[in-house]
Amino acid sequence: MPRGTPLVVPDDGLTTRQRRNRPLLMIHTGNGKGKSTAAFGLALRAWNQGWDIGVFQFVKSAKWRIGEQTVLERLAALNAETGEGGPVEWHKMGSGWSWRRKSGTEADHAAAAAEGWAEIKRRLASERHQLYVLDEFTYPMQWGWVDVDDVVETLTNRPGHQHVVVTGRRADQRLIEAADLVTEMHHVKHPMDVGQKGQRGIEW
Amino acid sequence: MPRGTPLVVPDDGLTTRQRRNRPLLMIHTGNGKGKSTAAFGLALRAWNQGWDIGVFQFVKSAKWRIGEQTVLERLAALNAETGEGGPVEWHKMGSGWSWRRKSGTEADHAAAAAEGWAEIKRRLASERHQLYVLDEFTYPMQWGWVDVDDVVETLTNRPGHQHVVVTGRRADQRLIEAADLVTEMHHVKHPMDVGQKGQRGIEW
Repeated sequence: MPRGTPLVVPDDGLTTRQRRNRPLLMIHTGNGKGKSTAAFGLALRAWNQGWDIGVFQFVKSAKWRIGEQTVLERLAALNAETGEGGPVEWHKMGSGWSWRRKSGTEADHAAAAAEGWAEIKRRLASERHQLYVLDEFTYPMQWGWVDVDDVVETLTNRPGHQHVVVTGRRADQRLIEAADLVTEMHHVKHPMDVGQKGQRGIEW
Repeated sequence: MPRGTPLVVPDDGLTTRQRRNRPLLMIHTGNGKGKSTAAFGLALRAWNQGWDIGVFQFVKSAKWRIGEQTVLERLAALNAETGEGGPVEWHKMGSGWSWRRKSGTEADHAAAAAEGWAEIKRRLASERHQLYVLDEFTYPMQWGWVDVDDVVETLTNRPGHQHVVVTGRRADQRLIEAADLVTEMHHVKHPMDVGQKGQRGIEW
């Protein structure tokens, strides 16, 4: 955890406090494990600060429910009961976005992704959350389901004080350039290399 | 989250289920952000599985308390009250390891690290936890406070079904060779590069 003195002090007219509290656009990319895990770890910190958290999972399958969802929803319930921490909303594409009234049959993936992004834009415009976790959001951008330039422009010009973390492999270079913090999770070694499948508690 | 078919099926006489549930030694290393964050994210998943979790933070300062500690201790209290999730113990070096009766004045860092490792060895031998988070444990190894060969041998031969995750920069090559899963968090871009300090909710 870096907490030393910055290497350079920018000539941007901001005080250290203003600069310190600047809202961040963060990207976790690369082919290694830990991109989503670290994003949900960040949500833990945010909950502890009492921030309002919105999680948006761009996954195709509705069946998949990860442990973090259960825990963060439990923490959200705790917030509602006792006021501890912050509220958390969890939405995912595969089960039909939770803000839509009718879920019905599974929509076309591309349309569902576009609809998810449209809702996130509305929320950013109205400053709805303090931390947005856009999990696996690089994929709909790669597949052309969501326009990268629109994402970059929207995130760059988002109002107020809203942190955003985007996860997924092969983040677009335009997104990386727009970001404040980029970590590449690099795969060095994984049990799947030697024939082991993913396991409960570790992968989900 | 990888859940496809492994590239190779090993000839180790194990069934897929046995292989899938093999206990893992995981390393999060590299110079980027997310090593500890992903390890605590893993602890979330483990809690949700009802696993017994032991966190051991090898940090020098006692003053530093990260949000994850507050949240995981809250989840541990929830487990004690309602039986949801699993138990969590959180120990850190800087404040004097919590299993020691007297904390007194701050001990010599090297002795404190060695003592922490000795306790972890005892717990591994008695199969005390199901997930061990050894946070920033690469540093006492680098500084010669804890013997790398002893760590590798102990972790390689640990009994039962105990997962271990070690975080910190510059993980020793012997440890990497012994590990099942290694991710290198590579620094691409960080706000500190442009003079911004760490901030609440993001760095802790």
